[in-house]
This record gives sequence, structure tokens and C-alpha cells, in this order.
Amino acid sequence: MIIVMKKGASASEIQDITRKVGDLGFKDHVISGETKTVIGCVGSGDKARIKALVTAAGVESVFPVSKPYKLAARSSKQEDTVVDVNGVQIGGGACVVFAGPCSVETEDQINESARIVKNCGAHFLRGGAYKPRTSPYSFQGLEEEGLSLLAAAREKTGLPIITELLSPRHLPLVDQYADIIQIGARNMQNFSLLKECGKSNKPIFLKRGLSSTIEELLMSAEYIMSEGNYNVILCERGIRTFETAYRNTLDLNAVPALKQLTHLPVVVDPSHGTGRIDLVIPMAKAAIAAGADGIMCEMHPNPEVAFSDGPQSLNPDHFKQFMAEIQPFVKTSGKVFPS
Amino acid sequence: MIIVMKKGASASEIQDITRKVGDLGFKDHVISGETKTVIGCVGSGDKARIKALVTAAGVESVFPVSKPYKLAARSSKQEDTVVDVNGVQIGGGACVVFAGPCSVETEDQINESARIVKNCGAHFLRGGAYKPRTSPYSFQGLEEEGLSLLAAAREKTGLPIITELLSPRHLPLVDQYADIIQIGARNMQNFSLLKECGKSNKPIFLKRGLSSTIEELLMSAEYIMSEGNYNVILCERGIRTFETAYRNTLDLNAVPALKQLTHLPVVVDPSHGTGRIDLVIPMAKAAIAAGADGIMCEMHPNPEVAFSDGPQSLNPDHFKQFMAEIQPFVKTSGKVFPS
Amino acid sequence: MIIVMKKGASASEIQDITRKVGDLGFKDHVISGETKTVIGCVGSGDKARIKALVTAAGVESVFPVSKPYKLAARSSKQEDTVVDVNGVQIGGGACVVFAGPCSVETEDQINESARIVKNCGAHFLRGGAYKPRTSPYSFQGLEEEGLSLLAAAREKTGLPIITELLSPRHLPLVDQYADIIQIGARNMQNFSLLKECGKSNKPIFLKRGLSSTIEELLMSAEYIMSEGNYNVILCERGIRTFETAYRNTLDLNAVPALKQLTHLPVVVDPSHGTGRIDLVIPMAKAAIAAGADGIMCEMHPNPEVAFSDGPQSLNPDHFKQFMAEIQPFVKTSGKVFPS
Amino acid sequence: MIIVMKKGASASEIQDITRKVGDLGFKDHVISGETKTVIGCVGSGDKARIKALVTAAGVESVFPVSKPYKLAARSSKQEDTVVDVNGVQIGGGACVVFAGPCSVETEDQINESARIVKNCGAHFLRGGAYKPRTSPYSFQGLEEEGLSLLAAAREKTGLPIITELLSPRHLPLVDQYADIIQIGARNMQNFSLLKECGKSNKPIFLKRGLSSTIEELLMSAEYIMSEGNYNVILCERGIRTFETAYRNTLDLNAVPALKQLTHLPVVVDPSHGTGRIDLVIPMAKAAIAAGADGIMCEMHPNPEVAFSDGPQSLNPDHFKQFMAEIQPFVKTSGKVFPS
Repeated sequence: MIIVMKKGASASEIQDITRKVGDLGFKDHVISGETKTVIGCVGSGDKARIKALVTAAGVESVFPVSKPYKLAARSSKQEDTVVDVNGVQIGGGACVVFAGPCSVETEDQINESARIVKNCGAHFLRGGAYKPRTSPYSFQGLEEEGLSLLAAAREKTGLPIITELLSPRHLPLVDQYADIIQIGARNMQNFSLLKECGKSNKPIFLKRGLSSTIEELLMSAEYIMSEGNYNVILCERGIRTFETAYRNTLDLNAVPALKQLTHLPVVVDPSHGTGRIDLVIPMAKAAIAAGADGIMCEMHPNPEVAFSDGPQSLNPDHFKQFMAEIQPFVKTSGKVFPS
Repeated sequence: MIIVMKKGASASEIQDITRKVGDLGFKDHVISGETKTVIGCVGSGDKARIKALVTAAGVESVFPVSKPYKLAARSSKQEDTVVDVNGVQIGGGACVVFAGPCSVETEDQINESARIVKNCGAHFLRGGAYKPRTSPYSFQGLEEEGLSLLAAAREKTGLPIITELLSPRHLPLVDQYADIIQIGARNMQNFSLLKECGKSNKPIFLKRGLSSTIEELLMSAEYIMSEGNYNVILCERGIRTFETAYRNTLDLNAVPALKQLTHLPVVVDPSHGTGRIDLVIPMAKAAIAAGADGIMCEMHPNPEVAFSDGPQSLNPDHFKQFMAEIQPFVKTSGKVFPS
Repeated sequence: MIIVMKKGASASEIQDITRKVGDLGFKDHVISGETKTVIGCVGSGDKARIKALVTAAGVESVFPVSKPYKLAARSSKQEDTVVDVNGVQIGGGACVVFAGPCSVETEDQINESARIVKNCGAHFLRGGAYKPRTSPYSFQGLEEEGLSLLAAAREKTGLPIITELLSPRHLPLVDQYADIIQIGARNMQNFSLLKECGKSNKPIFLKRGLSSTIEELLMSAEYIMSEGNYNVILCERGIRTFETAYRNTLDLNAVPALKQLTHLPVVVDPSHGTGRIDLVIPMAKAAIAAGADGIMCEMHPNPEVAFSDGPQSLNPDHFKQFMAEIQPFVKTSGKVFPS
Repeated sequence: MIIVMKKGASASEIQDITRKVGDLGFKDHVISGETKTVIGCVGSGDKARIKALVTAAGVESVFPVSKPYKLAARSSKQEDTVVDVNGVQIGGGACVVFAGPCSVETEDQINESARIVKNCGAHFLRGGAYKPRTSPYSFQGLEEEGLSLLAAAREKTGLPIITELLSPRHLPLVDQYADIIQIGARNMQNFSLLKECGKSNKPIFLKRGLSSTIEELLMSAEYIMSEGNYNVILCERGIRTFETAYRNTLDLNAVPALKQLTHLPVVVDPSHGTGRIDLVIPMAKAAIAAGADGIMCEMHPNPEVAFSDGPQSLNPDHFKQFMAEIQPFVKTSGKVFPS
């Protein structure tokens, strides 16, 4: 931790701080600059306590030197984490596609979706049984029936399934049906839910919050990992900015930036990330070129009648084109598209 | 709903849309402009279904004319909602102060806090027993012990208490102890939790998410109200912007904007809203001048040793000054500071 | 400057940096932490050169300890700057109102505007002769004719005038007519223009850019001051955020934050800051409560037919109410409203 | 234009609006919905005048249906604009690289830069002679001497040069030396400067402002084009968001979104866009995959001693790697890398 004293801080104020730093179990290093004094604090005590010294007399600011995450950090594990789901590998040299409708709506709809996903060569079937909708009056999902329809579609196609968890109450059910448990953007800092996911033995697909920094995303991964579940997949899915031409601003910078900071796989969701079907293919290509380990994409047999997210779902023809167009970029990126 | 067709959309594309609009139970009104055709859709069907038509051939955009919230809307209830908590009224002509530490740490700490809050003339004691911390390694709260210490402090001072709920699992306990249940910014769109709060008979204090629009805040209030709990208090507590001079950017525009859109009380939290103790007093004054029904403020007997949020907590002397300085602005705003 | 070395940086990398720090005329202070090494650099050399060391082997990040502005800093001049314009003082204990239409449109319109501004008790007449419009097809201002109409209105009412400068080419004319020269938000980092303003002897009214930090605002003030013109008035006028309920998000946090950092007067413009006439009065009150030295407000004799900014201009009745309602807040803030 | 009346607007308020719409030369179409009345306005009059009706009694909001730009719109010119500079084509099927140092510093530095740029196979030499620096105390550029050094480097290598214009005063000189004139992000809405560029016969390279929407970028292009200069190249170079892990957030969504809206070439600058050398290569690849017509990249013979932007400049080895790594993505994107 670094403490910057105010210009003109008195000697006794500086002494007071070094004493407090010592009391908290840190060793101080005082640097007297041209106009300001800086105090470096070395030690492994509770850094939040050092931070609170910002309210002490003479202190201007306090900031950390170390990253606050440990298990998720690349520095603690050099090699990429590879999450194996029924033999399909996420991370490492592969690039995988998760596709399907926003919501499970009917048996026909999810079976038809699964068939298309499979035939086009994608690797995971997505579909929501519990839906986090902005309005209480919108379709909220089929709940357990949805989970069971997903499982039946897996039966038919062999595709592993990924579905969202909204509440600790649903964990036992979701855990039983899903191959991968998704935590949505709006729950990225639902720390109670993260802790419970840490106790599951299913991989967790953690989406970045709409206004979460990548450090906060890594801290949320750390919550899950600190409970013992190391199979965490990170997902960039668009952030909030002033731009209104797209529903969200897909932030591809996060891909190479995360790759440096962490060993966890990084997936990109251009459907939610842009909210515009016409941007899904170019942004998927770009995500792969930036180094993504996978793409999540919304596809619906008939988007015009979808119960949710119709405006950003590809139709089957468009999805086929999507799979065909991204493949050369996977290859150029030196990755493998599992067949 | 308004559907804007692309420049050059064909007659058959337009016909196709009007047919689909009819199928969804809406009546269409076609306006042929200089360059574009606009289709107004009148009816009370499912608007999300109209929205999905954006993926149909020839359609450029689709947007709503009506607000998506009903129970929370000023247009459905002209007079201000007044929430009565043990005789203290929130909303209407009063301005109330919620104060106390971020976390309940020890019996002495919360009792001393309560004493100061009471003596300085504030109206509610705040304190967290379950803490949503960015890091899994930070202090997570005393849990039930914290709730029971809060209750004891209420016993001693007569101050009603407000405390945060993080998980449906804790609802029975929190509901039993708290006078007001707080939903934090990070859980504003935890819809499962909101639904459960809708079944409680305790008032809900709902904080705006860090990147939530005020329409989303009202939709989250609608979730609670649609389950039958009409006692919702809204709280502006700072949004995420590019500015780094403050931890968050307190958005006071939300106060008069919300007052127009809703009948619910609006409280402002300048402690979290700015993250800087030196901005708390001026921004509290400004919030009151903008029309806030109350102020939430972090105060700790000794911020330098606080387990959490020390950097933004007022010390007792500073809090006394806070109460003295905001009072004249309450009066000038034509409101009453309950004594 | 503080240089943070990467975890695991080698001894020779650290030595290489300390050598380079020395070569640039700084003295190094090496602190060896638990996991990282930090190097404090003390000296008055070119800090940008230290910053470039971030590209050297083993370096993780480099950041400054001192503020980059000098003349604008409160630390270099404790007492508030008071700008005197024909006897009306801006800064210090006064709170002044700048009002008038967005654009000068006709002789009648500006004279009528000036009459209303004067009668309602405001202090400066604003009006644009050169207009920065988003579209090249929108009204671009009356140019010199507009300046001369403003001067005639000043003649009639005694109100000093403030008008915007867009280009160095117009400086001689604008300088001749205006009492205060305004630099708009979109030109806040038009450094060539700022330098020219630094050579004028008229006060400069500098508006914060839509996505400029307050440090950047102060750096732009520094550009003007470093050329010799110390009469700079800062203006907060709304920033860009994700919120779409208002045209911009007026950032009142900037008022007390700037007051700490600088001795220059701080004015707030709630008309541009919110883009909504119904928010102008509450946000003006809030700005005054937060410590603003003045309010700029758009008023038009008939907003419905305004050539520009009609949607955010108060009409005469509304402006009269504005002046009546803000006055008590000026008094409660301990300031004087020059009569 | 669409006018949405408030819920409960009276018949006379609606009549008043339709009369005013008629007075402004538009034809009205009234749609009476379940709760609100919507008025469509058809005609080619001044839309800003319709917009000002938002202040009239009973009106809730007013919004446009058409895009405000014309010459820049894809709908007015289907085929891509190809800008030819000394035989090198920008736009169409090519992907070009603009590279060089932030500032021209010395004869040796710019000659060495040009040599590397040429040898590595890039197409344009960039370098600033007039520098827009945040601080008045930073290096401001060599001015005419810089232009003349650039011209000498062009002489030696045959590389066409691109350099930034800051002020109308410098236009004659810059126009004489440069092959392409750059307008920087901070001047994107310096409308006086844009108009002057519209009178030059050199192509204009227009960078998106840090908080400018893509519609505003196109309106700024429209300013230049409306004065007769149709050779405009757009450049995405990062926007301001809450994320602090990168200096700016490069917004690649803008690439495919712009390609739909306009026929002008779109270039991406990952150096300024991220501010981090380690993100330049992955984000350049991603930009190409997203459909960019070119990449602008900062390269310096020795970044550690650069006068400006050292932290984001590639060194010669890194630049060589950059050119080698992006080439396969150009090919996979179906574009040609001019040799």
C-alpha cells in the first residue's frame, strides 16, 4: 500500500501515520519528495485497514500496489485453466460455441433449437429456465419444466447444456440438470449466490456485470474459487456506455487484458454484447481474433415470435452463416474448433 | 409501440408487418413519410412481441410509447406515498436522516454509534450484519449476531433500524429484526430477492444500481410492489462514470426526475455516492435542495479503525456538523426535520 | 512519480530502472515489498519521461503523486479568485445569474430577453452569435450582427454580456464586444483557442467538456492562465453517462471537488446540464446548496419558436419563478445575490 | 418526427399541437392509443422547430425518425468511398497501416521511424508537428520544422504522410505539406475547423471524440462534406468508460455499425484506443476481423525516451511482429494488404 500525504502535511502528522502503519503490522518506508511525502507500507496485514487511514489528518490518498485476487491470478498459475465438460474442452487451444434461445419456451422450440445447434456444429446448448427479466410482467421462464426440456434435448443431441441460476433456492435443481451453471451479468456481484456456486462441482460461467470493471469480475471469480470450485469460465457480454447505437458496448479489450491477468478461459457473447443481430457475426470474428476461447450466441428457430430477446437472436439461416464465417478466424487465430 | 420501417422498405414488407401486428392483437396506423414509413400499434397485447418484429424484413427500429411500470408510476397515484415506521414518516413533507456505521462490528461500536446518531437528532440507525464485499477475503459481517446487536441498540435508543438483506435464505431473520429492509445497489436487479421482499410486510429501501437507469430502478420497485408490498423507498447512491476524482458520481438529477415519474419517497446517500467524506456535507445539502425526502449517511465512532467503508464514514464531530449544516436547507426546502 | 515493478521483476531490471531514473534527473527510493518492488522518484524533471518507462522491462505501472496544474491550484493561492466585471463580482461571497437565449436571433428577441433578464434580477445577459451546432444544416448564428445586437441590448439594460468564441479567427471581434468570453464544452480541449484566450484581457468562462475529468478542466484553465490571463471562471454543464432520462448528467460533485482543488469561481449550467426545463429549478437550487458561485440558465421569450435549444429554455414566467425560488437557497448558503 | 403527448393530454392541447405542426409546414397524423396520443409529422421543414414543441402544454417527448446526416449516409451512396492518396487506396477491398511516432522530435528520429515503417511494409507515415497536449507545460510540437522534417522523410521513403491540424491558422501550412490531414478526437466537434477542412482538397482523417456517439461522428463528417470535400476517413480510437484497466475503451462495435450507416472508410487506432502496448496487436487483429479498412499504430524507435505517448508506442521489434501478425487476419477478412 502507498500512502500519499497532503502537500504541507506536518512532521507530526507523518509520524502519526507511520505509528498507525506499525500498529497495523506493516513496515513503513517514508519518501520525502519535492512537495509531498509518500509512505510505502510493506507487510501482509489487512489492507482495508491501511485504506481507512485516508481519513486521518494530513493524508491525501491511499492506494494498493498488489492485485486483490489470488486464486484467479495468472501470477499464481501460469498455465491456462482448461475446463472439461463431458469431453469438450474450454480454454487452452480450443474455441467453442454456446448457442440456443434466450428462454426455453416449448418442447418443440428447444428440440428444434438443439437440432440446429448440433447440425451447424456448435458445442453447447444454451437456454434459460429461470429468466431475469427487467419487468415483473414479462415471461419469467418455465422453471423446472424448462430444465427438464433442456435435459431431454441433451438426450436427443448429445449436446451438453448451460443454463442460468438466479437464486440459491434453485441451486439443487439447476445443479442436477445443468452441465455448466451460468451466473448472469445482473448477479455478478450477488456474493451469496457466488459462494453457493463455489460449493457446486459444476463449472460456473460467470458473466461480467454491465458496469463492472475487469478487476471486479476477477474478484467475483475469486469468490467462487475461494469456496473450492476452480472451474470458472469468464464471459464478456457488453458494458454500459453513453453510446445508444447498440444496446450495450461489447468490450473486446477485456479479452487480451483478462488473458494477461488470469488463467481462466474467456468467452464473448456478442448477442447480449451488442443487442443487434447485424453486429453478431463481425463482433464474433473480432472476439476470436482478440483471443477469445469461445463465443456465446443467441439463436431461435423463429426470432419474430420469441418470448424474450427476439431482437438479438439469429434465425437458423443466419446462424448457419455465423458458424461458417467464424471458422476461418478460429483457424487463423491458431485455435481449434472442436468438430 | 412505434415501428419505423427502413428507407425503401417495400409495400409487401409493410403489409407483412401490419399483418403481424394484427396477429399479435394490435391495431396498426400506417404513416407514410417523406423517406420512411412509420407504423403506430395500438392495443394492450404483449409489447415484447411487437419489439421482436425488429428482426423482420424492412424494419429499422421499434420503440415503446408507454412506460413499462404501473404501480410505481405517479400517473397511477398522484399523491406521495408516505411510509410510516414506528411513527416516523418517510415521504410527504418530512426529511429524515438514516445514519450509522457500514458494518456492525462490536457491541460497543454499535451502541456508541446509536448514541451519537440519537444525540445528533438523526432518525434511523443503519448498520450491516450481512455485508456484500468485493473481496471474499474482507470482513463479511457478524450475521445474526449483528442483527441482535442492532436490536439491542434500538432497545437502548428507540431508533428504528435499517439493515441490508443479501440472500433469500436470510430473509426470515432479517425480517424479524429490521424495521426497514435494505436492498443494496449490487442486488437491485436480483429479481428473485425482490420478489421475496414483495411478500414481506416491512418497508423496502431499494438502492439504485451503479449503472442502472432510473427506469430500471422503477421496474425493480415494480417487482416488489407487484407482489403486494407497496412500501418502497428509493435511494440514489451514485453511478459509474469516467470521472475518477470521486469513487462514484452521485446523480442528483435522479431526485427531481424520479419525483415526476413516481409517488415513492426518494432518499440520497452521499457517503456511497461520492466515497469522499469531504463531499458528504455539500452533497447532502444539494440533495435536500433538489427535493430529497431523506439522507443516508455513514458515521463511525472511529473511521480510522472501521472494518469497512472507513474512508467514507464521518466521525462523530463531523456528523454533528453535518446535522447542523443540513438543517437550514431542510427548512428552506419547505420540509420538516422530525425532532 | 511512483514506479511499480512487476511481481518477479529481476534485480537487473530494477537496477536498469533506477539508472534510467537517475539519467532523467530524479533520485530513486526503492521499497522492496512482499511481492513487488516500488520505486519512488523524487525530483523536478520532466515527469512525462518517467511515465514512458512503463514500456521498460519489468515495469508494471507508473503514476504521479503531484497534481499537474500549478496556477489553477488552491495550494498555490489559498484565497478565492474574484472576477470583477463592470463592478459585478464573480466568486467570493456572491452568487450571480447568467441568463438569456441560446442564440441571438433578432433584435426584438434579444432586446426582449435582456429586458426580462434585467427585470427578474439576473446579472449577465448570455446569447450566442457563433453557434457550435451538431448539424451543418442547423442555424449557425448571426455572427458579427449578433455581437452588435448583444452590445445594443447591453446599452439598453446595463447588463454585461457573455458570448461564445468558436475560432481564433473571431477572437478580435468577440474580444471587442463581449464582457466575458465563453469557451464551450466542445472546445474545452481546443488548446490553440485556449492559448489565444490567454492573451485576451477579458475574463474567460470555461465550460467542462462532456467527458472531461475535473483534472482535465483544470489543465485547460492552466493553458489560459499560463499565457497570463488569470480571470478564468469554470462551469459544470453536465457529462455523458449511460442514463437517457436526461440529455446530460449534471455532475454537482464537481462543485465541492473543484472548490477544494482550485481558487477559481465555479458556475453551474442546469439548462445544458439536464436538457430538461422541469429539472432546471431543482438542480439550480441543488447547485447553489453545493457551493456554486453562479448559475447559467437558458431563457427565451418564446421557447417554442427558438432557433436552437428551445427544449431546454425557460419561458419568461418560468424564469421569474426560477429567480424567486433560488434566492432563498443563495441566502441559506451564506452567499449574496447582487441586487 | 414523432410527438408523444402526455397521458391525459386534453383534446385542446392535441389540437394546439396539430395547428402548430401545420404552421411549421408539416402534415400531422394523429394516432389515439390506449393511454397516449401520438402525432406523426410528415414534411421536409425544419425539424429542430418541431423538436422545440416539447415545451408546449401536453407534450411528453418528441423524437426524429430520419437520420440527420445526408452526404455521409450509405443510403445516399451505396458503394464504398475509396480515397486515393498517391496511388494507395483507402477503403474498398484494401486494409492499410498508418504508423509512426506520436510527435516529430528530431530529424534522426523521424527518418529512422520512416525507414522502419517502410521496411516493415506499412503504407503511411504518421507524426505530429502540432501536438494537442493536456498540459501547457508538455512538449507542444516542432510546428513548421516538424512538417518539413516529415516531408523530407517522405522524400527519402516514398511514404505519404499524415499529420494533425489543430487550428485554422495552421491550415495553409499543413495543407501544403500533408498528404492526409488529421483532425484529432478533441477537435471532432470543433466545427469552425471542420468547415475549413471542407475547403481543402486533401483527404481528412477524422477521429471520433472520446465521448462522441457514432451519429455525432457522422455529423462531423457531414460538416466537412457539406463544404465540398468528400474524401473523409473515419477513425475509431477509444471512448471514455468507467473501466480503468485501459486508458480508453476501444469500441470495435463502431466498425460494423459505421459500415452500415456510411460509405466512408473506417480505420481503427488501437494505440490511443487502449493506451497499452500489450493490447495493440490483439486489438488490431480484432479490428481487422470486425471489418476495419485500416489500422493506425504508434511506433517509436525508442519509446522509453519518446517526448509524448511513449507508454503506448511499439518499439521497432514489436512493430515488426505487429505487421507479421495482422497480415493473416487481413487475408482471412478477404482484404488486400497493399505491398
